[in-house]
Amino acid sequence: MTGAEPLEHYLDARRADVETALRAWLPGPPQAPAVVATAMRYSIEAGGKRLRPILCLAAAESVGATKGLSAADAREVAMSAACAIEMIHTYSLVHDDLPAMDDDILRRGKPTLHVVAGEGMAILAGDGLLTEAFGLLTRTTGTAGASPDRRLRAIAVVATAAGACGMVGGQALDLDAMPRPGVPAGAPLDADGLRRMHALKTGALITASAVVGAIMAGGDAATEHAIRQAGEHFGLAFQIVDDILDVEGTTAGLGKTAGKDAAAGKPTYPAIFGIEESRRLARRCITDAEAALEGAGLHHSRLAGIGRWIVERVN
Amino acid sequence: MTGAEPLEHYLDARRADVETALRAWLPGPPQAPAVVATAMRYSIEAGGKRLRPILCLAAAESVGATKGLSAADAREVAMSAACAIEMIHTYSLVHDDLPAMDDDILRRGKPTLHVVAGEGMAILAGDGLLTEAFGLLTRTTGTAGASPDRRLRAIAVVATAAGACGMVGGQALDLDAMPRPGVPAGAPLDADGLRRMHALKTGALITASAVVGAIMAGGDAATEHAIRQAGEHFGLAFQIVDDILDVEGTTAGLGKTAGKDAAAGKPTYPAIFGIEESRRLARRCITDAEAALEGAGLHHSRLAGIGRWIVERVN
Repeated sequence: MTGAEPLEHYLDARRADVETALRAWLPGPPQAPAVVATAMRYSIEAGGKRLRPILCLAAAESVGATKGLSAADAREVAMSAACAIEMIHTYSLVHDDLPAMDDDILRRGKPTLHVVAGEGMAILAGDGLLTEAFGLLTRTTGTAGASPDRRLRAIAVVATAAGACGMVGGQALDLDAMPRPGVPAGAPLDADGLRRMHALKTGALITASAVVGAIMAGGDAATEHAIRQAGEHFGLAFQIVDDILDVEGTTAGLGKTAGKDAAAGKPTYPAIFGIEESRRLARRCITDAEAALEGAGLHHSRLAGIGRWIVERVN
Repeated sequence: MTGAEPLEHYLDARRADVETALRAWLPGPPQAPAVVATAMRYSIEAGGKRLRPILCLAAAESVGATKGLSAADAREVAMSAACAIEMIHTYSLVHDDLPAMDDDILRRGKPTLHVVAGEGMAILAGDGLLTEAFGLLTRTTGTAGASPDRRLRAIAVVATAAGACGMVGGQALDLDAMPRPGVPAGAPLDADGLRRMHALKTGALITASAVVGAIMAGGDAATEHAIRQAGEHFGLAFQIVDDILDVEGTTAGLGKTAGKDAAAGKPTYPAIFGIEESRRLARRCITDAEAALEGAGLHHSRLAGIGRWIVERVN
């Protein structure tokens, strides 16, 4: 279902849809105290690619088409989940940027939340985004609606991907490999350790984005399995490209401090494999993802197009 | 259904049930990296009164009895929710104790998590506990089972109570009223501000504990409403007694630093109303809670007994 719409238009339109929905769903005064609601909004409105919610919507469209759902209806039924995942991604950035973690002062071209609101409020705003995300996942959106069973399953998939066996676990491995004041560092990561860390820290939530889109749009177990496989390849490709951009990009283009991982002595794909081999690895991921999607008849879908964009992006 | 079992035996038995279930449900290696799994377990195993999960189980029992469920079956159907709420309470303590928040080094008689594992790992362990809690809420337990609709509703209630319109919001109000390095403090809290802050920070999750127990055990809307009202009175009573104990207790008895709130210039009920009037207010809450429960025929229930314990406790 790639249709005639160019990918750039599609990405812009979906980004706008997601940002409109996020603005409507974020809590605000008087129910939520203004001080924390403002902090949550600051981080969400700092922008970003919105890769994860777009992947979720594209997966819903691709699967929905096989169930007779229009593209718009399929996206609508997955919109609450797409926004919830972006809220979880944003909370993870807020906490990662804290002085006790990566200690970064610039994100998406703006001062990080702890710089503008203080560390304590940044911790709370992250906690708030994570909690509200699960509240949002309980809601159904769109005329198609998702059954309670599908919503529960989506919550379970997201919790597993974001929790100690996923994103939080990956961040812990990353943190543990760094020397910190007063805490002895664990062993530095080798290539296998690097792959596991990224699979948890970044890959799990990217994979879950696609899987949850498929669940909300009514995908069966075989489709969900194919999309999970493709999502894992997407996640790895995304991380390799991110590492390449960290070496090659500029701070202005990336909206975050370039070259920071290398300067911190963090292992990266280019540092281990070199730039050219890293590029080849990323392209290979997309070929593998397309093979997985082909098994479910989804290799010409919008989802496959989003996969190609992941390796072609420049920020 | 108070039966013949003395309250102390009941509390000990339920605490043991909850601790056994928590140990079984916490993630561990190899799925979760040991470094964060260990940190999560440290905080959960530091003990505590387990007030919230016990309230949840007692509410399930009290409501279940009106639906023909045995006490054991009713507790079992609410056990995943009870443990999830304790995980959320524990994460909130871990984050509250951080240097950027209350900066406390002792909790439940043991060094706080950031003291033993470092700040970054404490933030992550808290994030992990919060995330895993929502995963756990998707599961049904016990032979009675809770329908997907009831589980979704429980998740929505917990997310609202724990998020920006609840616990996180209350903690933000508390933090905002304290002077912090580099961040100008908001206005100090007056009696109304204090009540709102505590209603969000402590009351909302205590109320949700009872409400979710009622939902999981099959309570109807009128019962849920009565239990919500009682839960709000329990929450306020708990906070008033906590403030009194902070003034009167010892560090050894409380397992946390006594007199800290007063020393930090935080407003407390005894500081505003005096000790005797604070005690009277707490007892009044329990009378009000019993009146709310009476409307649903639950004034002789286990839940009412737990309410009385809240004001009689000494730590």
